[in-house]
Amino acid sequence: MRSLITNIHLLAGIENGDRRRVVSGADMASMRCLKDAWVLAEGGLITGFGTMDALPDFHADTQIDASGSIVLPAWCDSHTHIVFAAARDGEFVDRIRGLSYAEIAARGGGILNSANKLNEADEEALFDAALHRVHQVMAQGTGALEIKSGYGLNTESELKMLRVIRRLRETLPIPIRASFLAAHAYPASYRNNKEAYVKLIIDEMLPRVADEGLADYMDVFCEEGFFSVDDTSRLLDAAALRGLKPKIHANQLHNSGGVQVGIRHGAISVDHLECVAEPELEALKHSDTIPTLLPGAAYFLGMHYQPARQMIDAGLPVCLATDYNPGSCPSGNVPLLLNIACTQMKMLPEEAIQAVTLNGAAAIELSTQLGTIAVGKTANLIITRPMPSLAYIPYDFGNNPVGRMMIKGRI
Amino acid sequence: MRSLITNIHLLAGIENGDRRRVVSGADMASMRCLKDAWVLAEGGLITGFGTMDALPDFHADTQIDASGSIVLPAWCDSHTHIVFAAARDGEFVDRIRGLSYAEIAARGGGILNSANKLNEADEEALFDAALHRVHQVMAQGTGALEIKSGYGLNTESELKMLRVIRRLRETLPIPIRASFLAAHAYPASYRNNKEAYVKLIIDEMLPRVADEGLADYMDVFCEEGFFSVDDTSRLLDAAALRGLKPKIHANQLHNSGGVQVGIRHGAISVDHLECVAEPELEALKHSDTIPTLLPGAAYFLGMHYQPARQMIDAGLPVCLATDYNPGSCPSGNVPLLLNIACTQMKMLPEEAIQAVTLNGAAAIELSTQLGTIAVGKTANLIITRPMPSLAYIPYDFGNNPVGRMMIKGRI
Repeated sequence: MRSLITNIHLLAGIENGDRRRVVSGADMASMRCLKDAWVLAEGGLITGFGTMDALPDFHADTQIDASGSIVLPAWCDSHTHIVFAAARDGEFVDRIRGLSYAEIAARGGGILNSANKLNEADEEALFDAALHRVHQVMAQGTGALEIKSGYGLNTESELKMLRVIRRLRETLPIPIRASFLAAHAYPASYRNNKEAYVKLIIDEMLPRVADEGLADYMDVFCEEGFFSVDDTSRLLDAAALRGLKPKIHANQLHNSGGVQVGIRHGAISVDHLECVAEPELEALKHSDTIPTLLPGAAYFLGMHYQPARQMIDAGLPVCLATDYNPGSCPSGNVPLLLNIACTQMKMLPEEAIQAVTLNGAAAIELSTQLGTIAVGKTANLIITRPMPSLAYIPYDFGNNPVGRMMIKGRI
Repeated sequence: MRSLITNIHLLAGIENGDRRRVVSGADMASMRCLKDAWVLAEGGLITGFGTMDALPDFHADTQIDASGSIVLPAWCDSHTHIVFAAARDGEFVDRIRGLSYAEIAARGGGILNSANKLNEADEEALFDAALHRVHQVMAQGTGALEIKSGYGLNTESELKMLRVIRRLRETLPIPIRASFLAAHAYPASYRNNKEAYVKLIIDEMLPRVADEGLADYMDVFCEEGFFSVDDTSRLLDAAALRGLKPKIHANQLHNSGGVQVGIRHGAISVDHLECVAEPELEALKHSDTIPTLLPGAAYFLGMHYQPARQMIDAGLPVCLATDYNPGSCPSGNVPLLLNIACTQMKMLPEEAIQAVTLNGAAAIELSTQLGTIAVGKTANLIITRPMPSLAYIPYDFGNNPVGRMMIKGRI
């Protein structure tokens, strides 16, 4: 199966020769592009690209004229909670009425609300709803996903969520990574015995998750009132023994120490980062850990945004992800995320786009396979509607920039 | 042609008996709804509605099962600049890089950028592009529109824009109101003779606009550095003699006096209102002028938001509109506007929805025909995708809530 896309107005995010794992600092503002270009996919991989004045005489099974369109790597959304049982539109209204997160939690809202709903839901219904959501975000340009557990909060329900994620991975044509996030909140029954819940995760859940091969990563919500730095450290040590690498929910509500504990344990990424200062940036600069920003949640909760500019100016490889979840960001719409990043955090369009392509891929260890247009990488590509510039993608907000998607070389 | 919608999960925004022109203050938080309902349209009008347990034995030409869906009045977007020649994605990037509006204007950007492009554009291309945009916003639930001129800034180009708007009105099945906004900015050639431009509008443009019946309203950008309160007053006096009622761009950047001059001239609405305090709210309370908020522009420019809560608490009938334009809000997506209003201005979902249905209709003098579900009103209705609650519309951001649209009784 050979697919050829021709007459591309702008082929954006190309790479030759030496490949990068991430793109950092000042480099984020520039994307290598070709004007008036073609790209060829064979066997699901990109096998060539160039300018139309030097188009070889290919035979292609499918040929697509992309006149006026931009072609770029599909989004890699490296932080989602896309498997959930029910919307939390009631809490959305409570928050508008002025209730705090703590008050909402005290009413049985928040993560425990999702956990209760998930416990009641059957696996089939969970799978169907999540599948629908994944199709929705794929239509908005997403070509790789990370999905977390963490609404189970007991062994059976955590395994149920992870099995739904496995089934999504088996069903869908895009790469899906799974993170085990039992340490998302303390279930109500362990409120007065938090140590026992940490032990339950380490002694009972982790072995089963690892034995069934259900997760790539171990995630912990390291935050005041949730899991302490010490808890996090123990959980990550235990996970490492089972072959699960860390990705951390860090520094969302406080300067929690989550960034540093993540880095000490070699976390692939530390995510959220609303509350970071010099020590966190300094620690990140001396690590391979990727700082992942989730401004959609900051927007939706009306909180202050992450210091993206400061991070880029510090030379860091900023990553963006949607945080798609029913509580703090019920949207997996990456084009809208790009608009939020540009208008509210003052990221340049190229910076925002690279944050969710190459750096998004890196945050789920897929940057050898995805995130740029390079020979040998998977042909997961966005073909936009006709548009004048790359900047038009975040500029034209509220409209879907995607004209067609190519996944594994197929439209 | 009789169309019947049955099994509606929630029929929202119904009215019986005494009809309201607007909904104000505390009343904005409640919408009258029927659960498990039907609604009938005949000859383009709503001719009945009720609950399924009392469904008469109708013959209908079309019958739609709306199980799980909400049916509500289509949005009335009362402030747009949807006719324009080109995107301004370049300025979007300039702004991210830190350039001020004044610096962008000094580089030939801003309204004058759009004016230059519009002067070069032919009427056919303008019409086609605007028609495409209107179809896009109709698919997102818009069932009535106001459109402004104001990128012409000379007699021929202002007339060209208004003729495009007239042609849109003749072509499209939704009501469209036209506002004459030559007083949007001073063209470059009048920079040193602003008085002459005001005279040009009054003596040359207005008579032709009025003679050709091209506009319903006179709009003026009353703002420091643009049109003064005195200019505005003269322009509105001249417009009144020609039968054009005022709608005003007021108090966007400064406490400009625009609200008060609008009210003194009986403006239908004063729009923007980022910069208002007690005197403006007091003046609005003693008038029939509708305060129209455009938070999409505040969001896109990263400015502070309008004090929506303070206005509702003061008992005012707050209206929301998109301000769809290529500079400060390149989006006519009302569901996204509702999300911005709820998350950033803390409007309740019902308040936000009524602000863009009944109050939106009132801001273009269509509330006898649109904005609620009432017998005799035009059957321009949104049938949502299945969803649990009205709050879900602004909650589920980045996804289109619209399943199907009924326009004049037709799907």
